[in-house]
Amino acid sequence: MTDSVQASSSEPRANIGVVGLAVMGSNLARNLASREGNTVAVYNRSPERTEALVNEHSEAGFIPATSLQEFAASLQRPRTAIIMVQAGKATDAVIDGLCEVFEPGDIIVDGGNALFTDTIRREATVRERGFHFVGAGISGGEEGALKGPSIMPGGSAESYETLGPILKTIAARAPEDGEPCVTHVGTDGAGHFVKMIHNGIEYADMQLIGEAYDLLRRVGGLEPAQIAEVFSEWNQGPLSSYLIEITAEVLRQVDAETGKPFVDVVLDQAGQKGTGTWTVQSALSLGAPVSGIAEAVFARGVSSHPEQRETVRPTVASRPEPQQVDERFVEDVRKALYASKVVAYAQGFDAILAGGREHGWELNPGEIAKIWRAGCIIRAVFLGRIAEAYGRNPELKSLLADPFFAGEVAEGADAWRRVVATAALSGVPAPAFSASLSYYDSLAADRLPAALIQGQRDFFGAHTYRRIDREGVFHTDWSGDRVERRVDVAPKEPQVAAPVPATPAPQTDRDTAHA
Amino acid sequence: MTDSVQASSSEPRANIGVVGLAVMGSNLARNLASREGNTVAVYNRSPERTEALVNEHSEAGFIPATSLQEFAASLQRPRTAIIMVQAGKATDAVIDGLCEVFEPGDIIVDGGNALFTDTIRREATVRERGFHFVGAGISGGEEGALKGPSIMPGGSAESYETLGPILKTIAARAPEDGEPCVTHVGTDGAGHFVKMIHNGIEYADMQLIGEAYDLLRRVGGLEPAQIAEVFSEWNQGPLSSYLIEITAEVLRQVDAETGKPFVDVVLDQAGQKGTGTWTVQSALSLGAPVSGIAEAVFARGVSSHPEQRETVRPTVASRPEPQQVDERFVEDVRKALYASKVVAYAQGFDAILAGGREHGWELNPGEIAKIWRAGCIIRAVFLGRIAEAYGRNPELKSLLADPFFAGEVAEGADAWRRVVATAALSGVPAPAFSASLSYYDSLAADRLPAALIQGQRDFFGAHTYRRIDREGVFHTDWSGDRVERRVDVAPKEPQVAAPVPATPAPQTDRDTAHA
Repeated sequence: MTDSVQASSSEPRANIGVVGLAVMGSNLARNLASREGNTVAVYNRSPERTEALVNEHSEAGFIPATSLQEFAASLQRPRTAIIMVQAGKATDAVIDGLCEVFEPGDIIVDGGNALFTDTIRREATVRERGFHFVGAGISGGEEGALKGPSIMPGGSAESYETLGPILKTIAARAPEDGEPCVTHVGTDGAGHFVKMIHNGIEYADMQLIGEAYDLLRRVGGLEPAQIAEVFSEWNQGPLSSYLIEITAEVLRQVDAETGKPFVDVVLDQAGQKGTGTWTVQSALSLGAPVSGIAEAVFARGVSSHPEQRETVRPTVASRPEPQQVDERFVEDVRKALYASKVVAYAQGFDAILAGGREHGWELNPGEIAKIWRAGCIIRAVFLGRIAEAYGRNPELKSLLADPFFAGEVAEGADAWRRVVATAALSGVPAPAFSASLSYYDSLAADRLPAALIQGQRDFFGAHTYRRIDREGVFHTDWSGDRVERRVDVAPKEPQVAAPVPATPAPQTDRDTAHA
Repeated sequence: MTDSVQASSSEPRANIGVVGLAVMGSNLARNLASREGNTVAVYNRSPERTEALVNEHSEAGFIPATSLQEFAASLQRPRTAIIMVQAGKATDAVIDGLCEVFEPGDIIVDGGNALFTDTIRREATVRERGFHFVGAGISGGEEGALKGPSIMPGGSAESYETLGPILKTIAARAPEDGEPCVTHVGTDGAGHFVKMIHNGIEYADMQLIGEAYDLLRRVGGLEPAQIAEVFSEWNQGPLSSYLIEITAEVLRQVDAETGKPFVDVVLDQAGQKGTGTWTVQSALSLGAPVSGIAEAVFARGVSSHPEQRETVRPTVASRPEPQQVDERFVEDVRKALYASKVVAYAQGFDAILAGGREHGWELNPGEIAKIWRAGCIIRAVFLGRIAEAYGRNPELKSLLADPFFAGEVAEGADAWRRVVATAALSGVPAPAFSASLSYYDSLAADRLPAALIQGQRDFFGAHTYRRIDREGVFHTDWSGDRVERRVDVAPKEPQVAAPVPATPAPQTDRDTAHA
């Protein structure tokens, strides 16, 4: 397509290339190079980084390039390049650059944490220019990139024929069956959408663990080291997961400087990089209730407003004493954590399926659960159970309706209720435990107070209502004779609304750290 | 500016005009015309509606126009026109039309339910063309429009010099001091932003009332008519509000057809028009935790997925019996409702102030509370208390830090805890009660499990953390020697993220019904 490509003297030898060699990109390139059959071209805007990588890892046999032309010339057709640069403008610039030197049919992969709507836009633009564009969610952090991440590629099925086999060489493998944790998620932005929901679920998971810890400590009276033991024990059962495992590690850590538990010297203000917020905003647009994830995002927000906390704290006069609890308490908390986790995943998978319907992706929830069994932050035995549930019934309306999960939650429900009640009475915040229980009880209710809300809406805004006993749309003349009349049509009521353009996507180098 | 304006033979007589004469527009025009000093020009795209309004209300002295030229010619300078048409494209079309026939310095007011970011965009465009553009939130529904709404105009201070006195003639008047419920909220989109948060708070208010009703019924064993009496009684105290008042009316209503309580024949699937969703999405972008509003939006969402509810319900094996409660229970629920309401408003006002900071509006929370004391759906004695709180301390970091509200909540805290615990143990969903209590307990906590979350994030993503005992940003080498090291800089972590473009704004005629 360009002079420089044709001018290349040597035969192209690389079957895959990586653009952007910060930690994530370098690690991914090293991972690729370490697998049988791969020869990896590498390029970075500042050539020092390319040089350093190639020198430090001569075993990898990298083909370095000092220009995108050279990079393109080193790649076999169809050229396949994974971009690992900052989300936003940097990504757009590299895409533009690759489009200049690639030829129709070549494959451009964005492995960063792009917002899925950006990916949809980019895919359309790049496709028009004759290339394949794949937005691929990559989870597992720096270590995952090096040793085996969970990979969620979107884009065309055709591109996956080339890309899939390469990604399978580097993806994590599920401990259960050795299957690589990568699948063709769906077209255009599907991969980044699913990765976004993954991160939202991760927020909920972490918040639930945080609440369990807080209750075990403040109500149960256990010290961090003891709680570490509890988590290690839980890690042997159905809660077994990477996050539970590392929580035990963090709680076991002792601060060298003070001799105090590490967790006690860390400032209790949780940071966030925006993907949790994206998840909740997207789910709201889709009409998918994700209260567990939302409470997790809000909890981080509350924690990170120290001036507000310091102002309110002294005004709170009536601090309750922690409730007396018996020897059941630790097990109660475990069951509450487990049940709440089921709800968080039920909500997350509902949001995934709602996104699929909205955007015309044929998402396979069972396959998505499978590729989260290893490599990613939420990796857990639990994901295998979710895959089984969707395997039993691909049309499952909610994970909570699956016999296995319904049974698990029912088994723990009494304990869950005791824990939420204990938290409320003890003054220990348990927003995600509580929200999850409320969600469960809402789905279980024969009747919801939504009927009263419909009455209020009809009263003040003539928004009309439906009846339980016959078809039609009705309005009562509340300010007049209070007689009910059938009205011709219900007002159109979009379940979803357009959200608000706000600050740009995360722009830091660490964005590619794929929390 | 145009031939037709100059060709107008009669002197312009109207000081205000209304474009769009559906119910909201007609009512607003009638309200304007009924006030001393106003002469109202009216225009509608289909002239039949204009004719009908003028004929039915000859007492109003409307000046009808069959074209925008004629409409402009009938208005005194600076011309001031309120647009009351569907949000979205229809609004844009009318704005364009008015810009064709108006002259620089004239004032175009959008009285619809526009998304505030659209208003910011429109204001910039219209200002460039030399006109004033005012996005004005109008609350109070059809009746409010006719008898006195609460009005939240944005736009330039200069435009308010002309518009303010006119709006003051029609606005509701606060019962406490007779002040008109209108103020210049702030520049460009400030009015529509504040109106949006108003609607979000309204969602929370309604959900909290719904939860109180549900608990009184399912746990307290009261019938709707009895609960109506309870609400009527509550309406005499600090909860006194329009929504409590109409709730009693709705609960008192008996279905003529079946003889059953009205609320029992209404389908329990709550509709929504999107402003609650907008509020939560916007607050998320601003990093403002609005869990009460979010749970209200989610609760409507859960209710409106009947197929999911029907699938999950039968799988819920262990339905708990309602807890035994004593004679305190009704009063406990009242206190829980009151305390939760304080939290919902505290969160809503935090979101308002965060929006002001983000968009450079000098919002006055006390003034905003004041103009909500009458005319709008959330009108209540309570709003006067909020105005007083911000009057006492304009820099208040949270309503919960105000001595009055802190005292009120502390007084009810034990009851609130009992109610949340009872709901959890009884299987009655109380998501907004619970979320509000968790929020309160989070702000009150000496330490939050956010410290553990920071440890997890540092473990899996090297996201770093800060310490309680010294400055700096730290990282522990979890996969290596587990030694803590001070790192140069914290990764940039945007508190907020760009949301996702979704479906367009509500488009129905009823959108101007200003729920």
